[in-house]
Amino acid sequence: MPMLRIALAQIDMTVGDIAGNAATVLARTREAVDQGAHLVAFPEMMLTGYPAEDLVLRESFRTSSIETLHGLAPRLAAEGLGDIAVVVGYLDAEGGPRNAAAVLYQGKVAAQYYKHHLPNYGVFDEARYFVRGDRLPVLRLHGVDVAVTVCEDLWQAGGPFAVAAQAEVGLVVSINGSPYERAKDDVRLDLAQRRAREAEATLAYVNTVGGQDELIFDGDSLVVDSTGTLIARAPQFTETLFLVDLDLPTATGDLAGPVRGMTIERQTLSDDPVAEFDPRPLEIADPLPDEAEVYQALVTGVRGYLRKNRIERVYLGLSGGIDSTLTAAIACDAIGAENVYGISNPSAYSTEHSKSDAAELARRTGLNFSTIPIAPLVDAFLQAVKLDGLAEENLQARVRAVTWMGLSNQNEPSIVLACGNKSELATGYSTLYGDAVGGFAPLKDVPKTLVWKLASWRNADAASRGETPPIPENAISKPPSAELRPGQFDSDSLPPYDVLDAIIEDYVDRDLGWAELIERGHDPAVVEDVLRLVDRAEYKRRQYPPGPKISNKAFGRDRRLPITNRWRDTAPATDVGSDPRPS
Amino acid sequence: MPMLRIALAQIDMTVGDIAGNAATVLARTREAVDQGAHLVAFPEMMLTGYPAEDLVLRESFRTSSIETLHGLAPRLAAEGLGDIAVVVGYLDAEGGPRNAAAVLYQGKVAAQYYKHHLPNYGVFDEARYFVRGDRLPVLRLHGVDVAVTVCEDLWQAGGPFAVAAQAEVGLVVSINGSPYERAKDDVRLDLAQRRAREAEATLAYVNTVGGQDELIFDGDSLVVDSTGTLIARAPQFTETLFLVDLDLPTATGDLAGPVRGMTIERQTLSDDPVAEFDPRPLEIADPLPDEAEVYQALVTGVRGYLRKNRIERVYLGLSGGIDSTLTAAIACDAIGAENVYGISNPSAYSTEHSKSDAAELARRTGLNFSTIPIAPLVDAFLQAVKLDGLAEENLQARVRAVTWMGLSNQNEPSIVLACGNKSELATGYSTLYGDAVGGFAPLKDVPKTLVWKLASWRNADAASRGETPPIPENAISKPPSAELRPGQFDSDSLPPYDVLDAIIEDYVDRDLGWAELIERGHDPAVVEDVLRLVDRAEYKRRQYPPGPKISNKAFGRDRRLPITNRWRDTAPATDVGSDPRPS
Repeated sequence: MPMLRIALAQIDMTVGDIAGNAATVLARTREAVDQGAHLVAFPEMMLTGYPAEDLVLRESFRTSSIETLHGLAPRLAAEGLGDIAVVVGYLDAEGGPRNAAAVLYQGKVAAQYYKHHLPNYGVFDEARYFVRGDRLPVLRLHGVDVAVTVCEDLWQAGGPFAVAAQAEVGLVVSINGSPYERAKDDVRLDLAQRRAREAEATLAYVNTVGGQDELIFDGDSLVVDSTGTLIARAPQFTETLFLVDLDLPTATGDLAGPVRGMTIERQTLSDDPVAEFDPRPLEIADPLPDEAEVYQALVTGVRGYLRKNRIERVYLGLSGGIDSTLTAAIACDAIGAENVYGISNPSAYSTEHSKSDAAELARRTGLNFSTIPIAPLVDAFLQAVKLDGLAEENLQARVRAVTWMGLSNQNEPSIVLACGNKSELATGYSTLYGDAVGGFAPLKDVPKTLVWKLASWRNADAASRGETPPIPENAISKPPSAELRPGQFDSDSLPPYDVLDAIIEDYVDRDLGWAELIERGHDPAVVEDVLRLVDRAEYKRRQYPPGPKISNKAFGRDRRLPITNRWRDTAPATDVGSDPRPS
Repeated sequence: MPMLRIALAQIDMTVGDIAGNAATVLARTREAVDQGAHLVAFPEMMLTGYPAEDLVLRESFRTSSIETLHGLAPRLAAEGLGDIAVVVGYLDAEGGPRNAAAVLYQGKVAAQYYKHHLPNYGVFDEARYFVRGDRLPVLRLHGVDVAVTVCEDLWQAGGPFAVAAQAEVGLVVSINGSPYERAKDDVRLDLAQRRAREAEATLAYVNTVGGQDELIFDGDSLVVDSTGTLIARAPQFTETLFLVDLDLPTATGDLAGPVRGMTIERQTLSDDPVAEFDPRPLEIADPLPDEAEVYQALVTGVRGYLRKNRIERVYLGLSGGIDSTLTAAIACDAIGAENVYGISNPSAYSTEHSKSDAAELARRTGLNFSTIPIAPLVDAFLQAVKLDGLAEENLQARVRAVTWMGLSNQNEPSIVLACGNKSELATGYSTLYGDAVGGFAPLKDVPKTLVWKLASWRNADAASRGETPPIPENAISKPPSAELRPGQFDSDSLPPYDVLDAIIEDYVDRDLGWAELIERGHDPAVVEDVLRLVDRAEYKRRQYPPGPKISNKAFGRDRRLPITNRWRDTAPATDVGSDPRPS
């Protein structure tokens, strides 16, 4: 059997930086050649970044992608890198915008594949952007027949992988921009195994890594053999050029032309097998445990947003509560404590522990800490405008936010981080233009119960490495409170968080209606309250900062609901559409 | 030739209020019967409201739509309304969610049509929601063959209208949820004329009216005969049951089964022609002139958002400038001056005219007016946090916003209106959490040059009716300024607005790249500055309130760009991706 050394370039590109991304392809291809690879595969839309959203609709952008691709092939050859097959994702425009993969070889664009299955659900809008392809190039490389597919093609049976089986290919290279979700690595492996068996070929899967606005990419590149056995897996959340040496069958197939609605196009790049070489041992990285995985995802998302937008420092309000504490810990891990500025804004209603816990966090992590009491600011407003009740509570939150935004604007390039979690965002338990301000919201998709788990995990992880746990124990153990009036606790307005989060998961993440929610054992009275809160808070969510998606349904582009919406999932007897809407 | 009286129900429904919308169908059908109509047509997705967005993905919502439809048919018959054919848009779920139209007759759901062409561009995501249909029911009603289509079906040749031609129908009823855009009425008439000729049949087009979040529906229901001649047209922006008496050909066709990828399904509701009656004269409403149309669209959008969300009053900052002045005038027209609260927040940098112009606006319109000077509030912050330059300017804007939000929260149900225009939103010429706060932004899609035109039009229109022009002349004529530092004018930071707006229209609305922009005669240095401003401001736009779409590309769901984005449309020589990003 011929052998090939393939390099899976699990790397981080930047949306829109076509020249920079092309430079990365060049540098990583050189590295792959230096390491003896015969094929290197870069992720989906490597040149443009992914997802490029409506940039795809701009002719200038498409032209730049295509010209860059066609410049890259001779450039690689000129630099002595023409003998390696380079699989690279880019944006083409043949007969409409295409989510494309090219194979560069010997100074030429040897083949182009256009994504066949275009996802148009969840965060994906690919029917908006792309025309689907129906050609499957099969390239003979050192005597092995290789096909290329793009991302979603892997998620559906009966498509390009079935065609690849009929073409009798030995290797399918799948290039991906597959966003992270909790436990998606299991789903992905299962799919790769099915498709490898469907194609009766080895499957090499490469995914990008890093953060792009609300999406996190975890890498998790892997290789599955034709029996569906996992034989190599790269670590998550790390840029790496992952090398895998594969025994592959000598090509014998010759079927070409129309098959199952696609067209097989054959081409020989090289018939000669590669010279014998000593194979490297295969590496299978262990998947991360749940909390470690989520925490690393959040750090990756925050770091990606800040670095790619060239933001050097962050400001955030430290209330001593668990949300701001965990947000600060994530920020310190993402960009270094020296670039994190925590502000304590005590009011008349702040407890002693809220101040001391915030200061303790600063001591443990080394972040920059300052205190700006808000009493004189609140008093000044209350002399100008008569406010009480909820309006006065909101005032306190907004006065704090003005101080954070002022410091951030004074010390650019910087942003404020919003500290709200998914449970708050779901129920509208936050103040617009108050604690909701920020350029990025690390915990936006993290339910409160998971916030606590992540904090405990981060401390335990530090302890296991002999480091100081960053999070004061009291921040984890005390009952949550917004401290906007004396003796206030979250439990005054909301059900216990374990009850609340279970309902949110069923209603928001799973889109279940009233009957199903009750069937699943949730208390009808609590369900009614929670659904009313969730439905009413849509207008607040619409103005919330972006934050990293970790669940299968994050607020934002994943869940597109009207603000003006009288639908209420309620028990049949309840009147529909009679709730007044709070502002 | 048989005659039919058809009623086009150009009415406003509410998303999610399925029971309420069904009650409207019942009431309006009764009205149609009272007026002697033989067929009444309600808009696209009448029962659920349009667009229902991700509600479509909820099984409980789909079930409610279907059950309500099937309850409506016998209910109509029970109330003596079984003899009129009722065409009504709803959500079905046969083989997946369907954007459907039903014909109710004699107590039964006589036929169902599923939208064939699903738009998936601009603000539309119908590939996310619906499965396309391929059946064309042809119903014989009083001896006339009638087909039904839904909205986008009208926009494409060779689809259901071509099939309708082969079926030799006499009438095509097109039910729509077609959002308003400037001058779209011309496009719509042109399309209706083409499709009527394609179908060789009379085309009756009914569209909804009202506001739904960022979309405005203008009605503009119309009838075109089989030669493409406009024979009736309803007024825009008005709820109406529009009656049209039509001479239609006696049905003779009998083609059924598969045609052009669709299937014709024939059914006879009634063979007998209706008794002779005296036809009413045909009405053709004049289309509104541009400024009148846009102004009415904005009033419709604001009124719809406030009423459907049960918001009773609005607060807004009145700077004396044209944007807040026009916003106030629109709000007064939408919900009455007695429900509009204007706040003047003079600072040390405010000019005398800014205060007097705001007060004059209040006198002219009768809106509620109060003054809250911000100097003591700003001073309190400056003692707590050291800020200068832009950070201090932003502070002033934010302090003002805190007073508006406080008043709004204190006096619920109410919201703040944001007064920014499209030119500001494009260039990021606003303060996040400052002048950008609000629940709704009436001028969000109105370029500054159009703001002035609308203000002048509104005054002239008032004068022509012998009323007091609401807008102080000085607010229109003075040079625009944010008044955040002494002697500041917009022209210090931005090109003249006629130059700026022309570039924004080409870059944002038309998606043109650098080369095309220069070709169209824009100054390269100005283009470079403007594009940098537009690209950098994406993060601000993401948190901006919703506002009514009036252009062919509004910021928001119409233009989906990443925040993290290094693409710059620049002259080829310019370095790509080297700008630091301001916060």
